Amino acid sequence: MNPAPLGFFDSGVGGLTVVRAAQELLPAEDIIYLGDTARLPYGSKSPETIRQFADEDVRFLISRGVKAIVVACNTATAHALPILHQHYRIPIIGVIEAGVEAVLAEPKAERIGIIATRGTIRSHAYQHALAQRRTGLIIHGQPAPLLVPLVEENWIAHPATQQVLRTYLDPLVEKGIDTLMLACTHYPLLIPALSEILPTDVRLVDSATTCAEHLKQELTRLDLLAPADREGKLEIHLTDLSEEFENLARQFLRKSPGRIQRATLGN
Amino acid sequence: MNPAPLGFFDSGVGGLTVVRAAQELLPAEDIIYLGDTARLPYGSKSPETIRQFADEDVRFLISRGVKAIVVACNTATAHALPILHQHYRIPIIGVIEAGVEAVLAEPKAERIGIIATRGTIRSHAYQHALAQRRTGLIIHGQPAPLLVPLVEENWIAHPATQQVLRTYLDPLVEKGIDTLMLACTHYPLLIPALSEILPTDVRLVDSATTCAEHLKQELTRLDLLAPADREGKLEIHLTDLSEEFENLARQFLRKSPGRIQRATLGN
Repeated sequence: MNPAPLGFFDSGVGGLTVVRAAQELLPAEDIIYLGDTARLPYGSKSPETIRQFADEDVRFLISRGVKAIVVACNTATAHALPILHQHYRIPIIGVIEAGVEAVLAEPKAERIGIIATRGTIRSHAYQHALAQRRTGLIIHGQPAPLLVPLVEENWIAHPATQQVLRTYLDPLVEKGIDTLMLACTHYPLLIPALSEILPTDVRLVDSATTCAEHLKQELTRLDLLAPADREGKLEIHLTDLSEEFENLARQFLRKSPGRIQRATLGN
Repeated sequence: MNPAPLGFFDSGVGGLTVVRAAQELLPAEDIIYLGDTARLPYGSKSPETIRQFADEDVRFLISRGVKAIVVACNTATAHALPILHQHYRIPIIGVIEAGVEAVLAEPKAERIGIIATRGTIRSHAYQHALAQRRTGLIIHGQPAPLLVPLVEENWIAHPATQQVLRTYLDPLVEKGIDTLMLACTHYPLLIPALSEILPTDVRLVDSATTCAEHLKQELTRLDLLAPADREGKLEIHLTDLSEEFENLARQFLRKSPGRIQRATLGN
């Protein structure tokens, strides 16, 4: 048992999809969320820059007394998680391992499509993790850099989004994928639009839900769960505040984000 | 006469469209360009954050010994130029004033559409500057946040871009605009796509070309022109380096950007 808060970070507010999934599974946990909105997105930036930003994000959360950290961002997990594990002793959980386990939970999964930011695809983190765990998989990584801006504009049902999705997904469908890994915390909001485009037998795996399940297992294993007899609180810190970020936060969280505080990093 | 370099800055590499226009008009000038690629974009962030970033950009350029600074970014001009003028004595030239003058160079211009980032539109910088100089104008500001990501993906001729452009422009066309101000340094690359959509009698004014002309006038007026008998050099510094940024730089500049250096700000 440990009543201290959990720390989550992401480049922006997309990681709140992971928070929402975690709150459903772990309602007693206090959560401190850090979104680096002043420097978002991470997905198009270099590994060195992402590692530096992720390090500053972790230090902020540690300074707030968290008991464990969730990297609620695929790009940051892909590029920074190994080095964060080297530098910090606090448990740090990424979104990739859980996603990979969820993909492979289906024994027949064989042809795997992955959509993600350019940074995540280029890191080959998913591709390596999948190939290490099961031989004979056919894996197709598709960078989908325009999906984050479209989701952030809330153009989920716009015909342009359909066209962008088709451009990214048609090649994967032609290759006969049986599983599509949504390897970016923004993408759960696209599930309705994706379902219209994809053949019905393609299984969707999203990194938000799977990460929350993995987090619960880890907290149980490490005896870090909060006492069950309480309602967890959520505290959101962003490095840049604006009305849009607040609106987006509400959308990703599907409820009011409460009062959002401005965070200053790197001091 | 002054042989020192000119400084240009932008949130990313879009401002190189202004550099290209300046190099055509002022071939003898050395140019130091700073792109804050680690923290791009600026267009979706808050005025306070943009002002802080712009201040760090200016300090970097001053530390390199520039004789004048061009804010090659509409969002930074809109939010930060007045305060930069208060804090620094070096000549600092934005993109907005020149664009406004170019719009009004046509005496019959009456119904003006402006497309830009959300930050630029919300600042009302163009709207105020136009209304102050000519009464009776009808001005429509249209935020167009998806255009920058589409240009950065080089999806200029993609059907999704056509659809996005129509969503932004159809309301302006319906309002009978006679002039469209392209108030973002990324947009000159969209001129061919825009020309297909807009009625032929809508005049396009772009902030890159007009800013370069304004810069030449100012350097002449302040006696800051470089000696004419030489070929100016271009030095590019980015706060984050990647292959994509190099490719984009080539596209905006329409030639090789040469060796790009990594800049560290805020020290």
